[in-house]
Amino acid sequence: MNEPAETTEELNAEQQDAWEQLEQIVAAKDSEAARSYLKELPPGEDARVMAQLSDAEQHEFIALLNDEDAARLMESLPEIQAGQFLSTLPPEKAALIFDEMNSDEQVDLLDQLTEEQSEAIIEQMDPEEAENVRFLAQYDSQSAGGLMITELLSFEDSQTVDDVVTELRQNAEEYATYNVQYIYVINADEQLVGVLRLRDLLMAPPGRRLNKMMIANPTSVLDSTTLQDLQHFFDSHPLFGLPVVDADQKLVGVVRREDVEHAGEEQAGRTFLRFAGIMGGEELRSLPLKIRSARRLSWLSINILLNIVAASIIAMYEETLESVIALAVFLPIVSDMSGCSGNQSIAVSTRELVLGVIRPRDWFHVFRKELGLGLVNGIALGILLGGVAYLWKGNPYLGLVIGGALALNTLMAVCLGALIPLILKGFKLDPALASGPILTTLTDMCGFFLVLSFAQALLPWLT
Amino acid sequence: MNEPAETTEELNAEQQDAWEQLEQIVAAKDSEAARSYLKELPPGEDARVMAQLSDAEQHEFIALLNDEDAARLMESLPEIQAGQFLSTLPPEKAALIFDEMNSDEQVDLLDQLTEEQSEAIIEQMDPEEAENVRFLAQYDSQSAGGLMITELLSFEDSQTVDDVVTELRQNAEEYATYNVQYIYVINADEQLVGVLRLRDLLMAPPGRRLNKMMIANPTSVLDSTTLQDLQHFFDSHPLFGLPVVDADQKLVGVVRREDVEHAGEEQAGRTFLRFAGIMGGEELRSLPLKIRSARRLSWLSINILLNIVAASIIAMYEETLESVIALAVFLPIVSDMSGCSGNQSIAVSTRELVLGVIRPRDWFHVFRKELGLGLVNGIALGILLGGVAYLWKGNPYLGLVIGGALALNTLMAVCLGALIPLILKGFKLDPALASGPILTTLTDMCGFFLVLSFAQALLPWLT
Repeated sequence: MNEPAETTEELNAEQQDAWEQLEQIVAAKDSEAARSYLKELPPGEDARVMAQLSDAEQHEFIALLNDEDAARLMESLPEIQAGQFLSTLPPEKAALIFDEMNSDEQVDLLDQLTEEQSEAIIEQMDPEEAENVRFLAQYDSQSAGGLMITELLSFEDSQTVDDVVTELRQNAEEYATYNVQYIYVINADEQLVGVLRLRDLLMAPPGRRLNKMMIANPTSVLDSTTLQDLQHFFDSHPLFGLPVVDADQKLVGVVRREDVEHAGEEQAGRTFLRFAGIMGGEELRSLPLKIRSARRLSWLSINILLNIVAASIIAMYEETLESVIALAVFLPIVSDMSGCSGNQSIAVSTRELVLGVIRPRDWFHVFRKELGLGLVNGIALGILLGGVAYLWKGNPYLGLVIGGALALNTLMAVCLGALIPLILKGFKLDPALASGPILTTLTDMCGFFLVLSFAQALLPWLT
Repeated sequence: MNEPAETTEELNAEQQDAWEQLEQIVAAKDSEAARSYLKELPPGEDARVMAQLSDAEQHEFIALLNDEDAARLMESLPEIQAGQFLSTLPPEKAALIFDEMNSDEQVDLLDQLTEEQSEAIIEQMDPEEAENVRFLAQYDSQSAGGLMITELLSFEDSQTVDDVVTELRQNAEEYATYNVQYIYVINADEQLVGVLRLRDLLMAPPGRRLNKMMIANPTSVLDSTTLQDLQHFFDSHPLFGLPVVDADQKLVGVVRREDVEHAGEEQAGRTFLRFAGIMGGEELRSLPLKIRSARRLSWLSINILLNIVAASIIAMYEETLESVIALAVFLPIVSDMSGCSGNQSIAVSTRELVLGVIRPRDWFHVFRKELGLGLVNGIALGILLGGVAYLWKGNPYLGLVIGGALALNTLMAVCLGALIPLILKGFKLDPALASGPILTTLTDMCGFFLVLSFAQALLPWLT
């Protein structure tokens, strides 16, 4: 074990390595130091460093970098963080940084801005880059068109292996920034007719024509293909990229495995936040308090209404509650425990939906599976809590009321929790957003009702 | 809109296309039909089809496939589903299927089995494959060694471009199943000294020596590098793969971007399930009821104890509650709303930790950010619920008790929710697992205490 003093010193030294050092660089306006600082930062550390700087310091830091370095930095930050930063820059400066980015990154980041902000930036961009961005921006960002890159290598089918190799050698510098895994073969109408892997070129005799060796009629996707379909495709096909064609079979871009997986990760992050009631976009703590508070409250204010509706059941049984005040102790336990049991079912259904193991129409299969589990767990938990109630007040009827209510409510929560995500998904709603609140409102109401109505029925034996 | 009858028919036809058709194939023992059925199944559909078959039907279906097709099927299923299925096969049959898999898939699936089961299968495998698996199995599955593949291309540094191209052309068939993006250059001691991209070979003059054109001292990782470090690395470096070396700098494998991202997705899925209280491994509904029930109960039984502890605060104030029975209506609302507010903070902290925007030692920065938000949201929610309480009973003091308690408890929940994941992470515990229950136990206790102690203090004005 280190001595405490030493540990603290080490921690301080480490912190010094991070953003405090950067603050000194910014204060000294040292451009050279800023560049080498960025270069030596451990991977993943840049996001954290930027989050710690104030808005003004961030601007001063970016001013020290050239546009290309600034573009690399923006690309490596989480999209929401980069978008937030770019929205605070003057459009002329932002446009210079955008000009240095890859086409798919440009579109992703513009997607983080308001319509107005992104239009102002595009107007200031290099005209050729701007046209390409406008072309890509017409696509839904969660579709093949929105995910694809337009930097690709295509050759006509009448060319030979040697033509390709010569062209590659001559333009080695330009293509160096391309992520080339496949070469696409098109006909005179720019329609996709074949595909070649780089290694096929290496292993083939130089004089062969591309149409003699290409994989003809290659798999391709329409520009409108959804992210989920792309994920399923890459899950079951060991490819690095997939050509994207428009309705006329013309080659318009390439969607790469890494971009699909990255988009899937971003989506999973948003799903997770929505599940916990963060809506209307991601939240980072560097966002202004007004926006953060409003976004969280928009969800909490719905939730408080649902809670009041559920608790009004208790208000209807005030007299019963007054006679057996011990019930008030168990009401929150029954409602919370049923919520937990139901949430487990929601999680398993959501996960199975994502894995593709179930579809909404499999609801009866799911219901049958949960019925048995709800019975077993309901009885187990009912005996446990009923036993506690009995031992506490020495009244077996109190145990019966509490245990019976929890058992029945658990059974209901487990089945409902399993089915709600399927129903929402069947109606094309987002299961992550709505499943939790719907479930807990129902289980709260039902739990309060079961405890209090059982108590009313057995009132003579409880008092 | 379709007429209902038509929609039902369409649905039935679709279902027929899926597993019912498969049941017929299995019943008819039609090997040819089984193979073409698998081939024509839409991507992602195979997991669902297998989940719908009974264990016996699954066995009969696999018996209809050759070992290679069975291996491809296993590779495309979610790991837990494939592992569960393989564990029910006789080890001799499972070993034949394993022999046909890629090295990293072998290890991933063996990881899903018990020590005993996997040893029984390895003993029956092809001796060479078995040795390789034993070598890989020594690594933690969430480390570079556990994620890497051993199928790679390496050449000595004294060889030329032509040597490599000739070798590739001669063994084109063997390498066809390799996912070759890079060629690794080693010295006479098998130590990694350089790396080449396939396209560099294409663009270089044939006679050049590898050590004259390779990228020398390439980035590599130790076999013990963690998944998280690998994720950070690939996030900030546009590479497809990374060579893995042992402590002697010997090249032992390649870890590919896709495997790291796949492992990250699997981990995110488990995190999501743990967050909702599914522990001790993933749950699929095809698992036996006994295991599913036990896994869920293990978490629920902890939760019920925490709930009882929290509710015991209510029991201590039974007399106050008896005098102002309306309080019983608000206790579950206050505890549930504070839980929601705290969960939002947990989600944002967990997300920021994953994105690398914060680290545990940034706790003071996080606390300061949440303090303002907790005040704003606490006051807003307090006024709302306090207003409802006042209007319902016409007693301003009841409104004051309820509103004040909710405001304070929200402030506490928001700050605690933000800090708990950081603290757990700082102690190397899993924030997804423990943050929720710790938070709700604390906010329940504190919420009950605030409502009831405020009420006791203002009792003369409440009755």
